[in-house]
Amino acid sequence: MERIFATYLIETPYEVEQAAAVLAGEQSSGTFVSVPGETEELRARFAARVEHIELLDEVPTPSMPGDFLPGKIYKQAKVIVSWSVENFEYNIPALISTLQGNLYELRQFTGLKLDDFELPNSYREHFRGPKFGLRGTKELAGVGPKRPMVGTIIKPSVGLTPDYTADLVRTLAEAGIDFIKDDELLTSSANSPFAERVEKVMRVINEHADKTGKKIMYAFNITGDCRTMQTNYETVVNAGGTCAMVSVNSVGWAATKQICNWGGLSIHGHRNGWGMLNRHPFLGINFPAYNKIWRLAGVDQMHVNGIKNKFWESDDSVVRSIKSCHKPFLNSESVLPVVSSGQWGGQAFETYERTKSTDLLYMAGGGIMAHPSGPVGGVSALRQAWKAAVSGMTLEQAAQEYKEFGESVLKFGRKEVNAQ
Amino acid sequence: MERIFATYLIETPYEVEQAAAVLAGEQSSGTFVSVPGETEELRARFAARVEHIELLDEVPTPSMPGDFLPGKIYKQAKVIVSWSVENFEYNIPALISTLQGNLYELRQFTGLKLDDFELPNSYREHFRGPKFGLRGTKELAGVGPKRPMVGTIIKPSVGLTPDYTADLVRTLAEAGIDFIKDDELLTSSANSPFAERVEKVMRVINEHADKTGKKIMYAFNITGDCRTMQTNYETVVNAGGTCAMVSVNSVGWAATKQICNWGGLSIHGHRNGWGMLNRHPFLGINFPAYNKIWRLAGVDQMHVNGIKNKFWESDDSVVRSIKSCHKPFLNSESVLPVVSSGQWGGQAFETYERTKSTDLLYMAGGGIMAHPSGPVGGVSALRQAWKAAVSGMTLEQAAQEYKEFGESVLKFGRKEVNAQ
Repeated sequence: MERIFATYLIETPYEVEQAAAVLAGEQSSGTFVSVPGETEELRARFAARVEHIELLDEVPTPSMPGDFLPGKIYKQAKVIVSWSVENFEYNIPALISTLQGNLYELRQFTGLKLDDFELPNSYREHFRGPKFGLRGTKELAGVGPKRPMVGTIIKPSVGLTPDYTADLVRTLAEAGIDFIKDDELLTSSANSPFAERVEKVMRVINEHADKTGKKIMYAFNITGDCRTMQTNYETVVNAGGTCAMVSVNSVGWAATKQICNWGGLSIHGHRNGWGMLNRHPFLGINFPAYNKIWRLAGVDQMHVNGIKNKFWESDDSVVRSIKSCHKPFLNSESVLPVVSSGQWGGQAFETYERTKSTDLLYMAGGGIMAHPSGPVGGVSALRQAWKAAVSGMTLEQAAQEYKEFGESVLKFGRKEVNAQ
Repeated sequence: MERIFATYLIETPYEVEQAAAVLAGEQSSGTFVSVPGETEELRARFAARVEHIELLDEVPTPSMPGDFLPGKIYKQAKVIVSWSVENFEYNIPALISTLQGNLYELRQFTGLKLDDFELPNSYREHFRGPKFGLRGTKELAGVGPKRPMVGTIIKPSVGLTPDYTADLVRTLAEAGIDFIKDDELLTSSANSPFAERVEKVMRVINEHADKTGKKIMYAFNITGDCRTMQTNYETVVNAGGTCAMVSVNSVGWAATKQICNWGGLSIHGHRNGWGMLNRHPFLGINFPAYNKIWRLAGVDQMHVNGIKNKFWESDDSVVRSIKSCHKPFLNSESVLPVVSSGQWGGQAFETYERTKSTDLLYMAGGGIMAHPSGPVGGVSALRQAWKAAVSGMTLEQAAQEYKEFGESVLKFGRKEVNAQ
């Protein structure tokens, strides 16, 4: 029978073998004493198995509260556990409850993080994955393989009127932007009702498309309860939009899956709240596992932070995330990695150097909107930076070559230039 | 204009005022530089405000990776931040993205935990809260105010057939149980398809109700994608069931809300995965905030762990959770706290002592099923323990007075007896 394999990083004051056995027991038989009805045959068929243990490190203090054994050190290890598909069939929320359920509460661990998981081939028949994904979304936005999509976020996050937003969209359209999104803090607010914003923004986008043949992708933030999301989704479709944004953690898996099933829009997955799930090195979930869960829902675009971002995340972690979006999974479309957070053209060089890929949505908020020559200069600078990075130029060469990029280096780039 | 207030526990190497201002900025204007369009007027109307700061402690090492300032100590504080309701209207996923969104990624913090939040009165018109809640669920199960509902979990979690499960239900019914639930690891499995399990279990429960007038509440685990949950919900309703269980973290807020809206079943909210969100003292979310989010969805019953549980959580934290379930919120029904995890009758005494309440669903898995006299003895022992606790007896007195409870003390209670 096919099995599902999950890799965990664990920390424990006990013997690692013993702690891993507790994890497997809790997540399959699930009680603290032997009970009638638990036969050897049942155990063989349904029990989770510890498949592999690799010791990593030993530390004197625990990462989190848990059992304390006097004089003990805390062992960190990588552990692989497997379950039969018979346990959950093809029910992803049930899989989530198994891979990342009660096990985080076990006192035998002072650290536990789900790193990645692998599903057997039969899942291919049950999950389409992203309807558009990486290739489909770039095609929908009319962006070829040789460069990333260039995008921006409407800022300030809340407070602008639909008219002001539509005016900004016009300016950005004329500057050659590929993608614009609502901020995740804005859904429908007192002075920017959702339907009115869609109507006014799409009028600009449709007119621009009629004139130029290029339809800018705008990710309208439809995040809400099921009814609101359905209404808002239909509003976007009827206005000729191509994309909707969902704050996936806030909405949850089941409703996000439902939205992706409809298949009429590329779904922009915003992972706000991710820090709660990932920030501690020994608690929560790492991106490769997280990303697969949302690919199973059918999310087409997924946020991954960016090189030298304004948040805490390391560049290595960002690069790993970009690569997991690109990596094949269940023969479905790859996910478009959304590079965002404190970005401007300056990070294009290292991003390209480390990923050798233009299969990105490269987003700058303030980096475009606060460019010295305004949003038009901001978009130009980003396009220039990527052109230069792909052609093998350095940041300094590009700053000499391109006026708008040069201006952005002066405004945003002091740290990066000095560091080189 | 009405405002929403959120309380955070924070840790930072910066001045607390400065770090709190970054949090408020990120969660309302949302960019790292001033941008055109961000006027003073907009800021006054839509910007988040830091309302209150209370220094708690200073520590030499950070709780989590973040900015490092040489020679700095890390300050821990309680901070209250507020937002205008105009920012999100009555959209709870948008509220979640604001209260627990990107702020967890800010490098200015080495710890951040949402502790609680308060909503203005106008939310009462938009959210019914739990349809059944604490009182309605106890009534539905035919349990009066003088004692808790007594429940158990079918164990082992996975592997039993519907026939075996139905036989166990018959035994437990005859023993006088009020409530039984599927384990969170079981939805529909190869040898226990959901519909067959409902049919066979409900036949036993309905027959028992016909004979005795008491309809045992069985929480069938309907967790899954939207379509599966709807089908499974209808299966339970059509079979005469009164309850469905949802793993709320795995399913997510929007789909859970949808299910609660239907209003035909008491919804048992299982919080598996909670450890990811709460285990670290300075990361994630505390129960008072978490519980309110799910009360807004309409969940009727919510897991809270138990005194001397098998997990890591402290008794103080458990007691705080029970009290937050009981506490009024938006004039809606309170939530029934589900006390569970390594429970047997022995903890009834301290649970009652510390909460002075019988408004609980008190659950034992192994504590009932592995009782020396079998499940019948297990149920009797729990009922006896609560009767004794409410009447003011000590555990020792109860062990002398009641045969089955005495047996459970011998099997499960060594630690507790010695400790007294």
